[in-house]
Amino acid sequence: MHDEDEESGRVTLAAVAKEAGVSMPTVSKVLNGRSDVSRATRAKVERLLEVRGYRRRTQAASRSPLIELVFHELESVWAMELIRGVENVARENRATVVLTESGTRQAPAPDWLPGVLQRRPLGVVLVFSTLPGSVKRRLRAAAVPFVVIDPAGDPDPDVSSVGSANWAGGLAATRHLTDQGHERVAIITGPGDVLCSLARLDGYRSAMAMAGLETDPRLMRFGDFHVQGGFEHAMDLLEGPDRPTAVFAGSDLQALGVLEAARVKGLRVPEDLSVVGYDDVPLAQWSSPPLTTVHQPLRHMAEEAARMLLRPDDPGTAAQRIELATHLVVRQSTAPPRKA
Amino acid sequence: MHDEDEESGRVTLAAVAKEAGVSMPTVSKVLNGRSDVSRATRAKVERLLEVRGYRRRTQAASRSPLIELVFHELESVWAMELIRGVENVARENRATVVLTESGTRQAPAPDWLPGVLQRRPLGVVLVFSTLPGSVKRRLRAAAVPFVVIDPAGDPDPDVSSVGSANWAGGLAATRHLTDQGHERVAIITGPGDVLCSLARLDGYRSAMAMAGLETDPRLMRFGDFHVQGGFEHAMDLLEGPDRPTAVFAGSDLQALGVLEAARVKGLRVPEDLSVVGYDDVPLAQWSSPPLTTVHQPLRHMAEEAARMLLRPDDPGTAAQRIELATHLVVRQSTAPPRKA
Repeated sequence: MHDEDEESGRVTLAAVAKEAGVSMPTVSKVLNGRSDVSRATRAKVERLLEVRGYRRRTQAASRSPLIELVFHELESVWAMELIRGVENVARENRATVVLTESGTRQAPAPDWLPGVLQRRPLGVVLVFSTLPGSVKRRLRAAAVPFVVIDPAGDPDPDVSSVGSANWAGGLAATRHLTDQGHERVAIITGPGDVLCSLARLDGYRSAMAMAGLETDPRLMRFGDFHVQGGFEHAMDLLEGPDRPTAVFAGSDLQALGVLEAARVKGLRVPEDLSVVGYDDVPLAQWSSPPLTTVHQPLRHMAEEAARMLLRPDDPGTAAQRIELATHLVVRQSTAPPRKA
Repeated sequence: MHDEDEESGRVTLAAVAKEAGVSMPTVSKVLNGRSDVSRATRAKVERLLEVRGYRRRTQAASRSPLIELVFHELESVWAMELIRGVENVARENRATVVLTESGTRQAPAPDWLPGVLQRRPLGVVLVFSTLPGSVKRRLRAAAVPFVVIDPAGDPDPDVSSVGSANWAGGLAATRHLTDQGHERVAIITGPGDVLCSLARLDGYRSAMAMAGLETDPRLMRFGDFHVQGGFEHAMDLLEGPDRPTAVFAGSDLQALGVLEAARVKGLRVPEDLSVVGYDDVPLAQWSSPPLTTVHQPLRHMAEEAARMLLRPDDPGTAAQRIELATHLVVRQSTAPPRKA
C-alpha cells in the first residue's frame, strides 16, 4: 500500500527494522499511525527513526488531497477568516479542508494524531497550538508537513509559523491617537501571559514616548480579548473626572465592550471618546460607529501557512517564521479630542 | 476493496453489470466515483442502478469516519455556528469534519461529487443548497446519506432537511413591538425570492393585524440580509416626520445597519427607535446596545442534521423535514415608544 515510499538516502526502513528487532510491516504500521502496534514497540521504532534521521519521501501525488486545519477554539472571531484562507489555497490545489477542534490551547486531542497519519494529508495547519515533542517527531517521521498560524506571536522556534507584526500594530494604533492630539490615552491589551499582548503594549509605550507623553499606570490594563472584559475595564476607566479621551482596545471584541460602556455612560463615540480596535475582523466595520482598527491579515496569514505546506519538500530547511505586516484602518470611531 | 458491500436483496451488482453489458469492476467504479469510466457507460450504469432500485448496503464501520459539510457561502455569519454544531456531533462519534465551499447557491462544484464518493464519508450536510437530480441519484446509489440545513426555509420535498420556524419568528418579533405600544412598525425582510423572507413578512403582517394596526406599504421593505442594505433602507425609512418608531430588521446584520443609520440620524436606540434583529448570531449580543432578536437555533439545527446522517439506515423512510422552534431574546434595543 505504501510502495511509493522511497529510501531516504540516509537510512532505510529495513535497517531500522533490523536494529529494532521487528519486521518491516511493523515499522510501516508505526509510520502510518496504526493502532495494532504495542506502545513499547512504537516507542522503540519511533526513537530509532528519529535518531537515524529517517524521513519518508512522499510524492505529493501519493498523499490524500486534504489539508488539515486544527483549532483549539473554533469559537474565536478569527476562526472564519482563517478557514477562508486555508479553503482558498485548498481550492486552488483541488484539495479539501479537514477541520478539527482540539479542545485545548496546548495540543491536539490524543486521538487526533493517528487519524492524521491514516489520512495522509498534504499537510497540517495548526492555529495557536503548542505541539508536544512526540507529536512533532511522529509527524516528521511520517513526512506530514505542519505550520502554525500564530496570531498571538508566540512562536515555537522549532516549528514553521506565520504571524503578524504586533509591536508595529500597537505603535500605529497609539500614534493615530496621539497625532490627533489625545494626551490621556488608555490601553486595554490582551492577557499578560500572551506575547502579542506585551508586544502591543510596548508599541503603545513607544508611541506615547515618541509623542512626549507620560504613561499613567492606571490607564494600562490587561484584558481577556473578549467583549465583557473590555466593557468592565472601560466602565472603570471612564469613571472620574480625569478619564481618558481615547482607548486603544487591544482587540475588536474589547473595542465593542468599550463602545457599550461609552453608551451606558452617555458618552458619544468619537465626539466624547475615541476608540481603536485590533484585528479588523468583519464585525469591526459593522459596529456603530464603524471601528478604526489595526488590520491583522488573518486570511492572508492562513493562505501563507497553507502554501508553506504545499511547497516541494526540502528536508534541509530550518523552521521558517513569516511575519506579515499590520496596518491601521481608519473608520469612524476616532476623532480629535474636544477642547475643554 | 469493497467486499463489505452486500447485495441489496432486490438487485445485485452482477445483474446490473450483465444488463449494462459491462464488467462487475466497471459497475463498482461507477459506484465509487472513479474517473476512469466513460461518460456514456457511467450514465447507462447509473440509470440501471436507479431503475432497478440498487442501494449499496454499507456498514457504518466500513465508511471513513468523516462528515462532509458543504457551504455555498462560508462568509455568512451563520457559518461558524453551523460548523460548531456539526463538529460537536462529529466529536461525539469520533469522526472528523471535511469542509467544502461550493461557490454557488445552487449546487456543489462539479469536482465535489467524485471526491465525496472516493472519501466514502458517513454522510453529507449541505447548507442551503439545491441538489440536482443527478447528484442525488449518485449519492443514493453509493449509500451516502445527505441532509440539507436550510435556514431559508425553502425545502426540497425529496431531501431530508432541518429548518426553523420563520413565520412564528416574524410574528414574535413584531408582537414584542406592538405589545410595547409601537404603532408605526417597519419591516426590512430578506430577499423576495427566498421563502424565509416571505414567512417572516407574513408573521409581521399577522402580528400587525392581531394588534389592530394597519400595515403601511412604505414601511415594508425587501433587503439583502447584509449590513449595508439594512443601513440604506433605514436611512430612507427614518427620513421625514412620520418615521416609524420601531424596525423589525429581518436579520442581525440588517439590524446593525439600522443601528448605524440611527446613529447617523442622531436617534438613540432604544429611546428614539426600537430595533429587533433575527438569527441571534454571537454579534447580536456584542452590538451597542445589545440586540433584541429572534433566536434561530443554528448550532442545534446543525447537530440535528448531523445526527440524522448517523442514524441506522432505513431505505424505506421518506425524506424528513425537521423544523426547530425559534424564540425571542429580549436585550436592550427595544423599549416603549416615547409619547409625542
